[in-house]
Amino acid sequence: MAPKNQPIILITNDDDITSPGIRSLVEAVKDLGKVVVVAPDKPQSGMGHAITIGSPLRLNKMNIFAEVEAWQTSGTPVDCVKLAVDKILHRKPDICLSGINHGANHSINVIYSGTMSAAMEASIEGIPSIGFSLLDYRYEADFEPSKLIVRKIVSSILAQKKIDKHLLLNVNIPAVPSKEIKGIKICKQAYAKYEEDFDERLDPHGKKYYWLTGEFKNFDKARDSDVYALQHNYVSVVPVQFDLTNYTLKKQLEKSNLFK
Amino acid sequence: MAPKNQPIILITNDDDITSPGIRSLVEAVKDLGKVVVVAPDKPQSGMGHAITIGSPLRLNKMNIFAEVEAWQTSGTPVDCVKLAVDKILHRKPDICLSGINHGANHSINVIYSGTMSAAMEASIEGIPSIGFSLLDYRYEADFEPSKLIVRKIVSSILAQKKIDKHLLLNVNIPAVPSKEIKGIKICKQAYAKYEEDFDERLDPHGKKYYWLTGEFKNFDKARDSDVYALQHNYVSVVPVQFDLTNYTLKKQLEKSNLFK
Repeated sequence: MAPKNQPIILITNDDDITSPGIRSLVEAVKDLGKVVVVAPDKPQSGMGHAITIGSPLRLNKMNIFAEVEAWQTSGTPVDCVKLAVDKILHRKPDICLSGINHGANHSINVIYSGTMSAAMEASIEGIPSIGFSLLDYRYEADFEPSKLIVRKIVSSILAQKKIDKHLLLNVNIPAVPSKEIKGIKICKQAYAKYEEDFDERLDPHGKKYYWLTGEFKNFDKARDSDVYALQHNYVSVVPVQFDLTNYTLKKQLEKSNLFK
Repeated sequence: MAPKNQPIILITNDDDITSPGIRSLVEAVKDLGKVVVVAPDKPQSGMGHAITIGSPLRLNKMNIFAEVEAWQTSGTPVDCVKLAVDKILHRKPDICLSGINHGANHSINVIYSGTMSAAMEASIEGIPSIGFSLLDYRYEADFEPSKLIVRKIVSSILAQKKIDKHLLLNVNIPAVPSKEIKGIKICKQAYAKYEEDFDERLDPHGKKYYWLTGEFKNFDKARDSDVYALQHNYVSVVPVQFDLTNYTLKKQLEKSNLFK
């Protein structure tokens, strides 16, 4: 058991439990509290806020991090958070950390990202939560600069007297050496999207199939956007919410009598 | 081809292309424009905003709706919208309709719902979009009252001189006869969540597995919430946005110097 007052830190990700990114996250914070890892047994990138309702889930203890309790599940990142709270911890952790993702989750990626959906699930459940992503897709990405950033952000949050239980931060880290990182900026989510393209191919039986591809396009010129901050070698921190109501449009529609 | 000025209406869902809900949606609007259906070939409930990046997609023409072009895909609801725009319509439709879902998508369900994620994907791409759900999970649910509501809402939107290209509405319909429906209310997303429980079982080999279950809990007492409207037999319409930035928290964090 953790010593009294030691925070319980739940760690998950979407790249799978064996990825270098989650190992770096564990290493960055393992002396800040009692760390428990619950993560998928296979890659779950792009799973968004998927949950598993049509098939049952498996949960297996793993011995892959020195002195850190770890479990792998057959589920999605969101399933991992639910299983961690209900079947492993039997309580809410003090904070949930997700990542470090191999690749960017800035701007519209927050919607598609398994990393951020796991963090959002924790936030919905009343667990302060932070998703971390490094702007480098490669397995061999250098996570050392990210570890310093993660440690700084997590210790700042844990040092607060009272943490908002729905706190949810989307942190993206530029893929540059530590000395080139200019600082940490609070940002808004940039308006950007993917211009899709499907790579059409023929299978050996002559039938068509399609690979989803696409080009990232940023339409946001605001200087407080996450994309802008990252382009200028700042770490971007976007506070995220799960109330998706468009209150401006709500007011307009209430006035309009459109559906009367 | 559609006559000039006839809107192109893209229809999708998450229950699969053979579900009574999508058939009812097609029937409700098929004379309001040129309808094209692109929907999953298997149930995709709870898929959230998942996209398929680790495996290729299949796309097959179907002849299941009289005089309406229809395609089934092996992908998620979000994949369906992407495929429809890029490989079938070769243009953006004038509106995208998703549903009618068998079961509620009010409150926090907007986050998990494949129905609403398909609609959100269209909205991100600049296509006005509406998701419809009936508060009845059963295959045998009576969709006749819903068809009248759908028709009223879709024709009101299409009759506007200019439609906001990011318009995104989450419409939920109470499962009562038409004469008991009191009207249509513009609402906010209720703060509610699922209190999870996992049903733990043993497989024939003695190994544990878990089914996700849970109880819906509404914590929102506001009279303008969707849950409140539905409890009082109103149709709820929540305007939804894909900018998840928490601007209130952004301002607080900017002032706080927390990460300096």
